[in-house]
Amino acid sequence: MSTNITWHEGSVGLNERQQLLNQKGFTLWFTGLSASGKSTLASALEQTLLHSGVNAYRLDGDNIRFGLNKNLGFGPDDRTENIRRISEVAKLFADATVIAITAFISPYRADRDSARALHKASNIPFIEVYADAPLSVVEERDPKGLYKKAKSGEIKEFTGISAPYEEPENAEIHIKTHEGTVEQGVQQILDYLVKNNYLTAEQITK
Amino acid sequence: MSTNITWHEGSVGLNERQQLLNQKGFTLWFTGLSASGKSTLASALEQTLLHSGVNAYRLDGDNIRFGLNKNLGFGPDDRTENIRRISEVAKLFADATVIAITAFISPYRADRDSARALHKASNIPFIEVYADAPLSVVEERDPKGLYKKAKSGEIKEFTGISAPYEEPENAEIHIKTHEGTVEQGVQQILDYLVKNNYLTAEQITK
Repeated sequence: MSTNITWHEGSVGLNERQQLLNQKGFTLWFTGLSASGKSTLASALEQTLLHSGVNAYRLDGDNIRFGLNKNLGFGPDDRTENIRRISEVAKLFADATVIAITAFISPYRADRDSARALHKASNIPFIEVYADAPLSVVEERDPKGLYKKAKSGEIKEFTGISAPYEEPENAEIHIKTHEGTVEQGVQQILDYLVKNNYLTAEQITK
Repeated sequence: MSTNITWHEGSVGLNERQQLLNQKGFTLWFTGLSASGKSTLASALEQTLLHSGVNAYRLDGDNIRFGLNKNLGFGPDDRTENIRRISEVAKLFADATVIAITAFISPYRADRDSARALHKASNIPFIEVYADAPLSVVEERDPKGLYKKAKSGEIKEFTGISAPYEEPENAEIHIKTHEGTVEQGVQQILDYLVKNNYLTAEQITK
């Protein structure tokens, strides 16, 4: 085997990496009420990108809460640390030219703004995606019966019922999930990404 | 723009992801004394892989200690938490089919074994790479004057001088960095990866 081992002192910078892998890295930060469609949209988007050969990776409760953040609880300090770690990891993925997709309720504007600031400090694009569905709709969906439990008091401090959800004021992408299909939501995101040069149309139509 | 939005309920599994992106994910865990050549080898390997279009990403002091782990000190508990978080993040990268390359002294066998166990529990390959150079050699190199400071007592608990380095007993790859060039070290790693089907020869000779 004869590999051409190319090597120079120092690290491969972000621009060079993006050119070598023909992909830009950025973070898509989903936010929205429980059952608003965040995870479904995030998952469908990830699948669509992967099927085009574009590397995208979803950070969600399943792989974060039971892994990196398993030593965190749900008090105010731990909640902030939870979002901080997710932000840092998303930033690393984006720096590796993977499209980082985070799918957490992230109900507080201050937390989302911190995540944005952290990305900005490293010149990594941060795109907030608001999965918006009215409370009446998500309460009706209630796939896990959580809203019912929250209303009966069985679950405390549940976002939208007994804890606040602070709507994004300037999300880059605002999807009214109750007014369209999952495919339409994904298309809305892809249109945004192509229009703003995060992806090329060629990358996702091949 | 007409993207073919492919979507089915649920997540893309690891095997499907590996097929779609034509890359396997795994973690290469470097260990070795300060100035043993870990970072240089890790960096040269990353560059070589990127120049072949294979996504590899290095986790090191620069992007971890000042980011995800900036709220950790150097006491025993924080040291363990430091390695735990690095392990979790490396595992996420490998799960995303990126080759995760960690370059930390990681002097304790128990910590490295924890990192290995964590990967094993998720069926993510973990490959330990021992960057081995005798203490006399690294003390002579001493590019940052750290060994000198450690010997004078200016730096406390310095691995190899005033704190232990527990050599790997069964590292998958053992590189005697003082007996060969950086290119030879990289070649040794690539040979191992191809021989064990983590990479194909085609991937790195194109």
